[in-house]
Amino acid sequence: MAKRQGLVGNMLIAQSGGPTVVINQSLVGAVCEAKKHGVIRKIYGSRHGIKGILGEQFIDLGRESAATLEKVAQTPSSGLGSVRKKPKPEECAAMFQVMQKYDIRYFFYIGGNDSAETAHIVNEEAQRTGYELRCYHIPKTIDNDLLENDHTPGFGSGARFVACAFMGDNLDNRALPGVKINIVMGRHAGYLTAAAALGRQFDDDGPHLVYLPERPFDVEKFAADVKGVYARRGRCVVAVSEGISDKNGTPIAAAYTKEVDSHGNVQLSGSGALGDLLAGIIKSKTDISRVRADTLGYLQRSFPGVVSEVDAKEARTVGQLAVRHAVTGDPNGSIAIRRKPGAKYAVSFERVPLRNVAQKTRHMPDAFINAAGNDVTPAFIRYALPLVGKLPVIGRFKGYAVARK
Amino acid sequence: MAKRQGLVGNMLIAQSGGPTVVINQSLVGAVCEAKKHGVIRKIYGSRHGIKGILGEQFIDLGRESAATLEKVAQTPSSGLGSVRKKPKPEECAAMFQVMQKYDIRYFFYIGGNDSAETAHIVNEEAQRTGYELRCYHIPKTIDNDLLENDHTPGFGSGARFVACAFMGDNLDNRALPGVKINIVMGRHAGYLTAAAALGRQFDDDGPHLVYLPERPFDVEKFAADVKGVYARRGRCVVAVSEGISDKNGTPIAAAYTKEVDSHGNVQLSGSGALGDLLAGIIKSKTDISRVRADTLGYLQRSFPGVVSEVDAKEARTVGQLAVRHAVTGDPNGSIAIRRKPGAKYAVSFERVPLRNVAQKTRHMPDAFINAAGNDVTPAFIRYALPLVGKLPVIGRFKGYAVARK
Repeated sequence: MAKRQGLVGNMLIAQSGGPTVVINQSLVGAVCEAKKHGVIRKIYGSRHGIKGILGEQFIDLGRESAATLEKVAQTPSSGLGSVRKKPKPEECAAMFQVMQKYDIRYFFYIGGNDSAETAHIVNEEAQRTGYELRCYHIPKTIDNDLLENDHTPGFGSGARFVACAFMGDNLDNRALPGVKINIVMGRHAGYLTAAAALGRQFDDDGPHLVYLPERPFDVEKFAADVKGVYARRGRCVVAVSEGISDKNGTPIAAAYTKEVDSHGNVQLSGSGALGDLLAGIIKSKTDISRVRADTLGYLQRSFPGVVSEVDAKEARTVGQLAVRHAVTGDPNGSIAIRRKPGAKYAVSFERVPLRNVAQKTRHMPDAFINAAGNDVTPAFIRYALPLVGKLPVIGRFKGYAVARK
Repeated sequence: MAKRQGLVGNMLIAQSGGPTVVINQSLVGAVCEAKKHGVIRKIYGSRHGIKGILGEQFIDLGRESAATLEKVAQTPSSGLGSVRKKPKPEECAAMFQVMQKYDIRYFFYIGGNDSAETAHIVNEEAQRTGYELRCYHIPKTIDNDLLENDHTPGFGSGARFVACAFMGDNLDNRALPGVKINIVMGRHAGYLTAAAALGRQFDDDGPHLVYLPERPFDVEKFAADVKGVYARRGRCVVAVSEGISDKNGTPIAAAYTKEVDSHGNVQLSGSGALGDLLAGIIKSKTDISRVRADTLGYLQRSFPGVVSEVDAKEARTVGQLAVRHAVTGDPNGSIAIRRKPGAKYAVSFERVPLRNVAQKTRHMPDAFINAAGNDVTPAFIRYALPLVGKLPVIGRFKGYAVARK
């Protein structure tokens, strides 16, 4: 389709998938940008993603005050509500009927790869059925698994939470030694779990082991790894992705859940079963008495106040740029974040085709995973550290030993 | 025992029980105060509480730089390491032999009611066996369950974490509705679980239900409560104490664990079993499809950066005052925090006898729990809000509804 400019109509924006603490930055960035463009008349927000389009549950975002917009921008979780839903062709047709009634010509969908798939489907169906629509996906996911992107908005803050959680838990484990297993979000990509290592500062700091979904998880190897660390350090902190799978690709957690959403994803979060399973394995295969497991859970994507400033800023920018591109450039696409070469952290933003980010998952590259498959590499630390902001200061006594008498 | 002054000797300080994010403030407060008193010569720290005394694992805290001390003060978890151990009389005798060798005449033990019990035992045994020792307990516990105290150091920051966690999780649940159950620490006292309510701002904010160990937990009532809220709100966020027990006093989580420490405490934390059990109950007794459970876990006591300033300051003060009292006042005791009457938050500190805080648990008063036993009262909010510091700002769209076409 050729580039068009000056398309006049109303705008509809919505949020989809798991929330992040900066997803509203993207929303507010898009709304504020839209106000600058005369071709966009009304700015509607749909409640709970495409569910709100089908049910005509719209709010008038153009009437929200600047003060409210700024407060919402700093607030975690999807301010418009979210949904996990993949539209069928007949649902797309129903949505276009609604959009026609409200003269919606600009559509923005903020979310991860499933949401990008939804935007892609909506865009394809609009073209196929001749409904004139500019359709953009705005990236968001703590999983950091969108193709085309160096990293995704939401990851930096999620990674900051995970890094801080492990910094604190490492100190807790140092005070009361034992084996501590923490389950981290990330269905198919290990980035968020890998972020557990970002706060390591002293030689003996945990996590001492990091298990990612990019490598097959072997129970015997896991138990042997933990035994080895425990023998050396007298304690062991382990970061485990909720998405770890066996050599056949079956998620280790799959035995404990039956829930599947319409994108085909099995429920992994919102349960402590995987952590308890792994703790049980260590208890049964070793003689270590103190074994504990926590599942970091939804706090990773919603805890207020633990925000990476660079992440918040980039989330705002992708929202702004999606609107700017839709008005003045390509009729559809997604905004991708690229990192500029060089020692100093800097990014650029680029419009990419919807199909390039839809559905598919970007995995951790081999260069970020150690040979044993149980830790990250310094290359990962260099990659991820600029994304999380300055981490809390951790002090430790020099510990001048007193000679025994 | 009469008051004595001018006792010259060395000082030993140690930490015990579960860490907090401000326990090192108390440690550093005591060390800095000790440096001001000529009668205290050396300042030793014992590794891992009384275990380090029995094993002569001491470090020379007097040699740590001011910069290191300040960094450690701001660092979560017990900088000297911790332990859960109740000393037997023969272990006390062994400890006095060690103390004698190092000429220790001032002993400070930072911890909760179990640690106060340890300090009390050490003090009684010292008097019984004629070992001259000034012995103080310095209060610390996120559980907020020490007698004699209006509140305890560590609670304000733990409560801040829990309040923030529920603020974020409430927004998450609002975006993706369903039932969400979060398990909060607190073995016998519900204060920390009650803190889940401190961030409520809008009428429909969760937690919508709060279950405390002070009231018997009834599975049928729980399911009916959740169904009622879900019917009214289309969602339900629930705060549950890890220590909830049935009408016979048996912890609901007890069926899932066998571990008991030397103070007689059953392991409740470090497992997701209770949350998963409660989620299973809701799934089986209702037709609500999306039911999730998280266990907030050790993050509540160790997450860096989420600190209540008033809590940090008070933790510092109780450390200072314990040393000051030991040098110039009663030979033993514990420092208690009292709240001054009046609308503006202010506290005073008082020395209380060790036996008054040892072992026993302070529970939530009836005035803090609603009649139905499933929420806190405004009196609790007034009590606890000054302790957690200013909470993060939460914004919400006015949500000007667009008329359906």
